[in-house]
Parts: sequence; C-alpha cells; structure tokens
Amino acid sequence: MKIPSKYIENAVEQLSSLPGIGKRTALRLVLQLMNRSNEEIRQFAEAFLDMKSNVVHCESCGNISDFQICAICNDEKRDHQTICVVEDIRDILAIEATQTYKGIYHVLGGIISPMDGIGPTDLNISPLIEKAKSQVIKEVIFALSPTMEGDTTNFYLYKKIKDFEIQITTLSRGVSVGSELQYADELTLGRSLMNRQPFKLV
Amino acid sequence: MKIPSKYIENAVEQLSSLPGIGKRTALRLVLQLMNRSNEEIRQFAEAFLDMKSNVVHCESCGNISDFQICAICNDEKRDHQTICVVEDIRDILAIEATQTYKGIYHVLGGIISPMDGIGPTDLNISPLIEKAKSQVIKEVIFALSPTMEGDTTNFYLYKKIKDFEIQITTLSRGVSVGSELQYADELTLGRSLMNRQPFKLV
Repeated sequence: MKIPSKYIENAVEQLSSLPGIGKRTALRLVLQLMNRSNEEIRQFAEAFLDMKSNVVHCESCGNISDFQICAICNDEKRDHQTICVVEDIRDILAIEATQTYKGIYHVLGGIISPMDGIGPTDLNISPLIEKAKSQVIKEVIFALSPTMEGDTTNFYLYKKIKDFEIQITTLSRGVSVGSELQYADELTLGRSLMNRQPFKLV
Repeated sequence: MKIPSKYIENAVEQLSSLPGIGKRTALRLVLQLMNRSNEEIRQFAEAFLDMKSNVVHCESCGNISDFQICAICNDEKRDHQTICVVEDIRDILAIEATQTYKGIYHVLGGIISPMDGIGPTDLNISPLIEKAKSQVIKEVIFALSPTMEGDTTNFYLYKKIKDFEIQITTLSRGVSVGSELQYADELTLGRSLMNRQPFKLV
C-alpha cells in the first residue's frame, strides 16, 4: 500500500504507532481527519500538546492530575489511613466507578514482570514503603490483577511492609457476581470453593 | 468514568471523535501517549497539522497529493485515455496494489446515497463529464462498490456520458477468486451463473 502523500503517510505512521491500531485503520482515520476544517485539526493536535505540558502525576499517590496533588488525595472527606495499591490509573477509575471505596490510592505504574524486564525498581514502590513506615496508615489493600505477575508483586510488597503494624488485605477472589457457575473457569471455581465464606444475608 | 484531568479528558474526547474509537479505547491510547517524551508528542501532533496544511486534492483527478497534480496524473507512462472512476482514495490504493491497471483515475469523493443525503451535486462528477466531452478519453471504467448505491451512481454516470463516443465498462462481478463455491452468497452465485463466460485457459 503506497500512499501518494508523504504527509498523509507520516500521519498514518503516527496513528498506527498507538497500540491496537494498524496501518489500514490508521489510514481510514487519517482520511476522516482530512475532511475536517483547519480549526478542528488544530484542536485535535493541541489536545495532545496541552495534555503533555499540563498533566502531572500526583506527588502523593501517582494518579494523573492537573495539580501537584490530585483531587482524591486532596479530599479531606476521604479516609487517608487506608491505601489501595493499584497498577494503573485506569484501575482507579474502575474502583471509583463502584462508589464503594472511600480511602486513597497508590499507583505503582506497572507490575513486576521479569518477562517484560520490569523489576521492583522500575515501579513507584518506595514512596509506598515510606508511607507504611510513617505509621499514619492503618490498612493497605492490594488491588492488583489476579495474575501471576499481580501475585508476584503482591508478595514483594507484602514482604516489604509486613513488619510495620498495618493490616494488609487483598481483593476477594471468586466467581463473578451475576455470571453462571458452569462458565466459571476451573481455577477460579476451585479456589472459591476452597476459600468458601460463612453465608450472610446481604 | 470520571477522568481526574480535564486535559486528559479533552484528549480522550478528540481521539474518540474518530470513527470506531470509543471512550475506553481512547483513554487507553491517551495514557499510552502520556508515557511518551515531549518531543514524541510534538511529532505526533504536528503530523496532523502538517498534513492538513500541505495535502491537497489533485486538480485533475481528485486523488490526495502533496502537489497540484498527483503522481499518477503526472506519470507520462500511464494511459491517459483510460479513466477508472472510484469512490474514495482508498480504492485507488487497492487497485494500485493489484499492479494490473495502467490508466488514470477519477475520484468521486463519495457515492450517490439519498439515505445519507448525498446527491450527484455533492460529488466530483462534472469534471468527469468535461473530460468525457473533450474526446481525449477512450474508456471509462466504473469501479464503484457492487452495492445498490454503487449501481445507482453507475447508472447516473452512464446516462451523463453515454452520448459521447466512449467505451463504458465496469468491474466484472462473480465469485471471488480462491473462495469456496458453497460459501458464495446466493445473489453473487446466481448472477455469476447468468453472466457465465466462455472458458479460457489462463
């Protein structure tokens, strides 16, 4: 596929550098952009420049924010003694959407994954240990993905903070709410049988 | 999903304005962009600005081009007496990829589609009629999609140029090369039976 314009080709190149967008899709998107007005293209391009020059990571938790301290860390109504450890900013959005958590967060910015060359020093871990040491924290919740990498990271963090007097918890694992039992995978079903809980009327 | 930064939100808004990209995908892409350097973001944004300010439509055929006349129309080795009428620039790329066509193109920039409010006056049709009138053209090939809208457009163009001494052809329709007969749809199979061709050893 030889595109007859080096500018279009460059734009396709840039768009297809994004994960999950191939050359063909990128070309379709670029041709759609070509039909927009100069002003619309200016707004499109400036959105990314503005984002890069204005958005920072919260100094306290690592969340994305327009200010040095993010809205969650700045909220005095939240419980600052409970820290929920997440891998990524999108996990914060997912947990916030449940409207069931009132503590604050700590974003690792990744997960320990030797296969991808990501070790503990590549992650935002030491500020978490500092916070744990400071004795203002009562509970740390591990809310990482229930994968081997997530478990590895949980174990590493556990070893680092277990000696401080902090309650360490993790998300409960088991069959999904609202799903049919027959479709649950064997590992999940087996574990949720092993970790069965006292029956409670909700 | 409440994004804790209005700049990120704006960038997500812009990316999800592209066809086929939802809010969730856009956020994933934007967070990926956030991890790039300032220089990379500048290149990303400028690709679209450069494209918009430099790319024009070929004055002769309507193809995208960095110059007033596109590389295909400018190529003296090509057959300028044969014009292939296509809907979109991507169709040119598809036909060029076959390496079987040596004529030039004419891009309509769309297809007659009353349902979408697109009539003949919205398309790049009159330059084609001018070319047909000028008597330098020997053949016009209709290479529009084999859909109802494509057929309508073919019929409209046919009526407009049939009185000039030009051979008018269209892409052959029939079963796809390399596909299994049992999977061909009824309409295609029926038509390709009706329009059966003398057997030729290729």
